[in-house]
Amino acid sequence: MLVTFGAKLTHVSLGQIEIETPILPGSQQQQGLAHGALAFGIGDSAAGYAALTHLPEDQEVVTTDMQIRYLAPGRGDLLIAKGRVIKPGKRLVVVAADVYAKDGDQTRHIAMLTGTMVPVSIR
Amino acid sequence: MLVTFGAKLTHVSLGQIEIETPILPGSQQQQGLAHGALAFGIGDSAAGYAALTHLPEDQEVVTTDMQIRYLAPGRGDLLIAKGRVIKPGKRLVVVAADVYAKDGDQTRHIAMLTGTMVPVSIR
Amino acid sequence: MLVTFGAKLTHVSLGQIEIETPILPGSQQQQGLAHGALAFGIGDSAAGYAALTHLPEDQEVVTTDMQIRYLAPGRGDLLIAKGRVIKPGKRLVVVAADVYAKDGDQTRHIAMLTGTMVPVSIR
Amino acid sequence: MLVTFGAKLTHVSLGQIEIETPILPGSQQQQGLAHGALAFGIGDSAAGYAALTHLPEDQEVVTTDMQIRYLAPGRGDLLIAKGRVIKPGKRLVVVAADVYAKDGDQTRHIAMLTGTMVPVSIR
Repeated sequence: MLVTFGAKLTHVSLGQIEIETPILPGSQQQQGLAHGALAFGIGDSAAGYAALTHLPEDQEVVTTDMQIRYLAPGRGDLLIAKGRVIKPGKRLVVVAADVYAKDGDQTRHIAMLTGTMVPVSIR
Repeated sequence: MLVTFGAKLTHVSLGQIEIETPILPGSQQQQGLAHGALAFGIGDSAAGYAALTHLPEDQEVVTTDMQIRYLAPGRGDLLIAKGRVIKPGKRLVVVAADVYAKDGDQTRHIAMLTGTMVPVSIR
Repeated sequence: MLVTFGAKLTHVSLGQIEIETPILPGSQQQQGLAHGALAFGIGDSAAGYAALTHLPEDQEVVTTDMQIRYLAPGRGDLLIAKGRVIKPGKRLVVVAADVYAKDGDQTRHIAMLTGTMVPVSIR
Repeated sequence: MLVTFGAKLTHVSLGQIEIETPILPGSQQQQGLAHGALAFGIGDSAAGYAALTHLPEDQEVVTTDMQIRYLAPGRGDLLIAKGRVIKPGKRLVVVAADVYAKDGDQTRHIAMLTGTMVPVSIR
């Protein structure tokens, strides 16, 4: 899905992730703005990758719940999602992400997400 | 975005909407299951269209917040989202949606969403 | 806390719980309606007890996240919370609850909650 | 309800509120920790008062939805809730709050809340 979106990972450090994606025609809603599922998709992914930076290499994460609050329309050239870990844990990782829209020189906070991830072993 | 997903509206009645989408290769995550953003995208849309059935024709809705809880992996051929209105209102519409994965003969409840929509006038 | 509220368990069956509470003066907000924390408290408890009905006796549950959506003011004599299990599990239990206000003959749906509970062993 | 809890407002500035409450015997759950509804109640109130600091004096706020994520047990002498405004607006105010437990010298982040408030005119 991230390939479909054209998204790429632009920053990785412990508990902090950044993902950038263009707002492709195929990722827009009827008014030419970023579709809500685009902001959700990269926000959820940024939060999930942030959780992974706290886990051993043989573990993945599965999203249990994720809530997104939209703050402004997704207008512009690209979206940037910054994911972070609020509370790491063995059974649950609480995560958050903020999504920004870049429109020329302007960057605007368009969505915030909070969620819970469950670590699972890769067989 | 719904065109990218290949989603189509399969049922419309007052406060009740059904959307169906294949799980295209471009809508999968790394293990070949439906990406979380696909379930979110069609669930959010089904909830939004359900809200619209309660509103005058010159109004649209904007999602304020949407929470998704994942119940099972999105394995199979297609996803079906059923959106409904919990409480219609002039200022806010409270909505919900359930998402199911169809895998051959089996249908499984994979996600539930609840959210708030704000009606806005189309200029 | 439930003693402070005056709440009592009025129904228990597998995955289904009912809790009733008066709207005591000490549980009201400034306008004499039920305080949001009262609806939250009995809704969360009803959901938690519903989760317990699916677990062995040496386990308890801890709320991980709980979201409440208010649908109408908490006006009346008492509140009734109906908790249920959406998806039982060993690691996580997804739960929901609905809260109703009884005002004379009238019963009104005033809040809906969804949440995640984690089973923990009692040492 | 805040009187029942023994809560008091300890800080007010534009978009920032602090509420402190003892963990009274009547606000505890069965293990002597702060009941989840106490953390919710003061977090929701702190977020609501923070929203009020952005509104004209003839307006109040009503909580539309509030989600709480519990991060650690509510152990200690008192709870402190810090509410803030994420995005002020005429139709909706997006808010957040963090709740801390003070146990002797130690302060621990025990819960985070995010929510939506609707401004309403006082008749």
